[in-house]
Amino acid sequence: MMERIGSTTIWEGVVARVRIDEFRYPDGSTSRREVVGHPGAVAVVAYDERSLYLVRQPREAVGEDALLELPAGKLDVPGESPVDCAKRELAEEVGKAASGWRELKRFYTSPGFAEEEVIVYLATGLEEAHAQSDEEERLEVVVWPLEELDAAIDACADAKSLIGLLLFRELRREEGA
Amino acid sequence: MMERIGSTTIWEGVVARVRIDEFRYPDGSTSRREVVGHPGAVAVVAYDERSLYLVRQPREAVGEDALLELPAGKLDVPGESPVDCAKRELAEEVGKAASGWRELKRFYTSPGFAEEEVIVYLATGLEEAHAQSDEEERLEVVVWPLEELDAAIDACADAKSLIGLLLFRELRREEGA
Repeated sequence: MMERIGSTTIWEGVVARVRIDEFRYPDGSTSRREVVGHPGAVAVVAYDERSLYLVRQPREAVGEDALLELPAGKLDVPGESPVDCAKRELAEEVGKAASGWRELKRFYTSPGFAEEEVIVYLATGLEEAHAQSDEEERLEVVVWPLEELDAAIDACADAKSLIGLLLFRELRREEGA
Repeated sequence: MMERIGSTTIWEGVVARVRIDEFRYPDGSTSRREVVGHPGAVAVVAYDERSLYLVRQPREAVGEDALLELPAGKLDVPGESPVDCAKRELAEEVGKAASGWRELKRFYTSPGFAEEEVIVYLATGLEEAHAQSDEEERLEVVVWPLEELDAAIDACADAKSLIGLLLFRELRREEGA
């Protein structure tokens, strides 16, 4: 097993942290790696009989005015479980609560340099929630017709959202929808 | 349209670079964002009648000894086009050349904080190439049976590879494979 034998934070900003970690491999050799730290994140495929609940928001890092994505957020509240984070984000971003929660997949967004792991959930049994947050002033809720799921996949350029939508399409096919 | 009106590099390592970019939105308001720079990357779904050509490698950033992934690499050679980068990576990582190249999808791996965009290609008409690199000493080639594609998707925890494999499964279904 590879082992982490050292870690030094070399830069810390408001959002990003960069570490140099040192590793020892099973053959005894070692290496140093720059790692961009991340607390992890969750994303939610939320749907009812007619619609998927998506969002559009500016993504400054990639120069996009309005990237189509699943409701999502970072695990940045100490002590909050991933599924509770997903519930909070779904309420804050699209104003919905859900009675059914199921984990669809866990994955790393860019394991070559970033620590981020995302858990994608499926949320069903939706009802109105009144927790929309003022923080997300540039976020637009997109009620996307379920019958146009293929078009959402074509339009989506965000990795976590693509994975959620592709796995959701698969599930619906298995269920004969 | 959102506009980038300023950019300052605040930390630069061997791999990662962090900038503070300033943006102006259509309503005239502005914001500053930390952005982890990235040159972009390519990944390749390479297959023949029997097999998919995957790799396993340690991913120190996420503490994984042997993450299952598509052959892939960063766009870090000045002047090299994305498809040429994909050809080089396929040769270096799994020792294959391909006569057919098709772009499957472009997406951002983590647009909330990182600039990285990945292009996933489908590569067909494989033959042996002799360009395997010594740099990738901890990389293992995995010849994965095509009929066990579902198991590769289940085993995969890397976003770019998941997207490539999910879209490939879809294509094969459309082609009646």
